[in-house]
Amino acid sequence: MNVDEADEADRADDTARFDSNAREAIMEATYRALCAHGAVDLTTRAIADEFDKSRSLIFYHYDSKEDLLASFLAYLLERFEERMGTTCMEDPTEQLDALIDALLFGPADHEDFQTAMLGLRSQAPYNGAYREQFRINGEYVHGLFRGVIERGVERGAFAEVDPSRIATMLLITIDGARMRFVTLGDDESLHTARKVIDDQLDRTLFAGTGPE
Amino acid sequence: MNVDEADEADRADDTARFDSNAREAIMEATYRALCAHGAVDLTTRAIADEFDKSRSLIFYHYDSKEDLLASFLAYLLERFEERMGTTCMEDPTEQLDALIDALLFGPADHEDFQTAMLGLRSQAPYNGAYREQFRINGEYVHGLFRGVIERGVERGAFAEVDPSRIATMLLITIDGARMRFVTLGDDESLHTARKVIDDQLDRTLFAGTGPE
Repeated sequence: MNVDEADEADRADDTARFDSNAREAIMEATYRALCAHGAVDLTTRAIADEFDKSRSLIFYHYDSKEDLLASFLAYLLERFEERMGTTCMEDPTEQLDALIDALLFGPADHEDFQTAMLGLRSQAPYNGAYREQFRINGEYVHGLFRGVIERGVERGAFAEVDPSRIATMLLITIDGARMRFVTLGDDESLHTARKVIDDQLDRTLFAGTGPE
Repeated sequence: MNVDEADEADRADDTARFDSNAREAIMEATYRALCAHGAVDLTTRAIADEFDKSRSLIFYHYDSKEDLLASFLAYLLERFEERMGTTCMEDPTEQLDALIDALLFGPADHEDFQTAMLGLRSQAPYNGAYREQFRINGEYVHGLFRGVIERGVERGAFAEVDPSRIATMLLITIDGARMRFVTLGDDESLHTARKVIDDQLDRTLFAGTGPE
């Protein structure tokens, strides 16, 4: 590599670093703006206000508010993947437990954010980009559940079950409880959901393996 | 009653009839406009277009779009009460079954409407009138479930359970399945939810009463 090429490579690194920093800053601004304004009333101006930079920088990176929000959903998935990657546990029962709790209770300070996410999700039927990204995110979580259940079945920790059906059951219950928590302020739903899930797992994964 | 009083009474009847007809027509127009436009993009103009009358008649009866939509939620509850009132069954098991199916599967042609309702519900955290009416509607359905479960327990058809907790479990599962059906087009969720519910009821209401 000659000096020119090295310069070129440095510049490319800088560009990549700048882009990655800019993206991170825009994503964090989007997060704050969603918490403050909700998904429906969100404007790119509100995002730019949180970002402390001009809207033109946002439009340099994203074609529209819809494009930005679809990218934001992809960013959430990346973050979730990172978080779940670092909490990989040897024991499938513990891993399943941690995953259920992460999805059901999430970080405690995020009620405004959950509310905004429900607003965005309710727009998915009208917006192909949101729908596709929610489908990808949902499929990833479904796959995580299937994976840990399959691993548990292989090791004999869980009974022979249909991992896909159990995963769907878990996601139905988690979605329903979070919806009730967000729209009705019903936080009992979260704890009831956890009990419903435990009952279901006792009856399926742990059928014949436990002391009952 | 003299002639004047009779005239007065007739006029009052006419006014009541007109109001009731006008309300029904506005509610039906709101239903159609919600199916066509969703909850977020809905305007009173779109409702008036479905209504074939002027917006002023809507504003004569309702202060705002929000007031109209909150009234629409109350109207849905009235309609649901009427429908459930006529399907009262002697056998608590049959009654519970019919109620679950009505809420889970609903009328088959209503996907656009369910989508619009999710949009409205996702606005509830930001709108006190919607939130209050969703709370009332949800409490009514929770009470219906509690009522039929209590009746079944009294008759010995169901095991001794906490009717309120079972009702919450049913509503979590139904809400979650409908949300997935609407936002992900996942109609397997509805059938999986029905199986999850049956498993839960076998384990609770029918624990020790069935052939298992």
